[in-house]
Amino acid sequence: MQGNFPQSDSWLPHRVSYGETDAMNVVYYAEYFHLFERSRNAWLRERNLSYRTIEERGIFLPVREANCRYRSPLRYDDLIYIRVGVQEWRRASILFVYEIYDETKTKILATGSTQHACVNAEGKPVPTPAWLSALEKCS
Amino acid sequence: MQGNFPQSDSWLPHRVSYGETDAMNVVYYAEYFHLFERSRNAWLRERNLSYRTIEERGIFLPVREANCRYRSPLRYDDLIYIRVGVQEWRRASILFVYEIYDETKTKILATGSTQHACVNAEGKPVPTPAWLSALEKCS
Amino acid sequence: MQGNFPQSDSWLPHRVSYGETDAMNVVYYAEYFHLFERSRNAWLRERNLSYRTIEERGIFLPVREANCRYRSPLRYDDLIYIRVGVQEWRRASILFVYEIYDETKTKILATGSTQHACVNAEGKPVPTPAWLSALEKCS
Amino acid sequence: MQGNFPQSDSWLPHRVSYGETDAMNVVYYAEYFHLFERSRNAWLRERNLSYRTIEERGIFLPVREANCRYRSPLRYDDLIYIRVGVQEWRRASILFVYEIYDETKTKILATGSTQHACVNAEGKPVPTPAWLSALEKCS
Repeated sequence: MQGNFPQSDSWLPHRVSYGETDAMNVVYYAEYFHLFERSRNAWLRERNLSYRTIEERGIFLPVREANCRYRSPLRYDDLIYIRVGVQEWRRASILFVYEIYDETKTKILATGSTQHACVNAEGKPVPTPAWLSALEKCS
Repeated sequence: MQGNFPQSDSWLPHRVSYGETDAMNVVYYAEYFHLFERSRNAWLRERNLSYRTIEERGIFLPVREANCRYRSPLRYDDLIYIRVGVQEWRRASILFVYEIYDETKTKILATGSTQHACVNAEGKPVPTPAWLSALEKCS
Repeated sequence: MQGNFPQSDSWLPHRVSYGETDAMNVVYYAEYFHLFERSRNAWLRERNLSYRTIEERGIFLPVREANCRYRSPLRYDDLIYIRVGVQEWRRASILFVYEIYDETKTKILATGSTQHACVNAEGKPVPTPAWLSALEKCS
Repeated sequence: MQGNFPQSDSWLPHRVSYGETDAMNVVYYAEYFHLFERSRNAWLRERNLSYRTIEERGIFLPVREANCRYRSPLRYDDLIYIRVGVQEWRRASILFVYEIYDETKTKILATGSTQHACVNAEGKPVPTPAWLSALEKCS
């Protein structure tokens, strides 16, 4: 995925805590999705928006599908980087993609994606607002 | 605490999952508070109430203080029992106490407590409703 | 997926706790993977094995890929069922599949899958042991 | 506790994620203990040590008791600061204390403490190493 990662990306540094690990001495597989969320928030914030503000504008982005491929384990105290970008702005959904890198930002340890619906406060699908997809051009 | 545990108690069986453990090969210390919550829910449900119903009646029980003493580690796949009861019904708060037991229900592995305020939907303290403290007499 | 779900399945009941929910008032998307793990453990235990025993025999099953599709939200205090089975026994990996049902066991709320490598204590891939794939015939 | 907080303290900034919140729209009470752990790690790292290194030297610091008082809720996307210090170096244990502050570092939102035993790889209590308690003088 490294070749065609979205140009308008963000990188979030993260130090692995004990609470994220499991008895196999690596980060538990569900924790990657927490990391993905943190990086989505960072992507928005780097573009002067926050998901809280999106909600305040009446738009919610519930996850419809989530995927992760685990290549090499993350261990306690590792410094890692989560790279994030938007792969696709669809009519009523958004596809975020992720790569987790080691400390040197050269080795990919995991990749993933999350697809989000665009819904209003009643949970009804709505078109992705233009002010949201316009973020793509920021960086 | 074993001697004076509240009489109207409940016991919740629980099988330790991988996701609850950490790299020290034991259950991570924050996870005990999830177990306490599960046992509080079980205590209410055994008395034909649920916390969801309490909220629907306009009462919320946010945690004001939480405490846990860790005696012996819990390991992956262990079958444990969480014992729970109400130690004190105060005017506007409730004190739950907990004991975590091994599979034989004879060895205490941890003890704890959580103090909950009684508040309304606006977060204002309200007296503990009589229908709530009356649960104590059920069992 | 309902049509061709593996025949040798297991069903795990689960009551949604507060700690699994998020501010959108639904179960947080990463929590589904904890539920999947719990159901895997239940599937093994119903066949008189536990993942702990598997590890004691020198076999580890790290997750290589995980996927979840979220159809309808899970809410606090909901009673749900996680259905689990093995879709494929490959030479050196195993594909578990999942369906999450509502209380009536008729409505699918989510589906998912996890692919696990078979490795030894050194992390080297090894063929799936015959005593493991033989579990498929138990039920 | 503000008055007599240990002088050799550290401050860890933290942005609240969705995964840390619950259906009451605030950070779930167990999550505070994850934050405490992150701040302990930061305290060590600011003194040029990491808990991983401590373990590599054969010393483990399992939590024996944990406590948190919740004063004001933390909400999604809040920027908070976790202040951490060592209140007491006992013969074979260490007492960490914590304060969680709002964005302005003026309002205390929560306080807490964790007591850690000093044990070797076999889990036997050992005296707190001098190279560990010497960290107190770093800052």
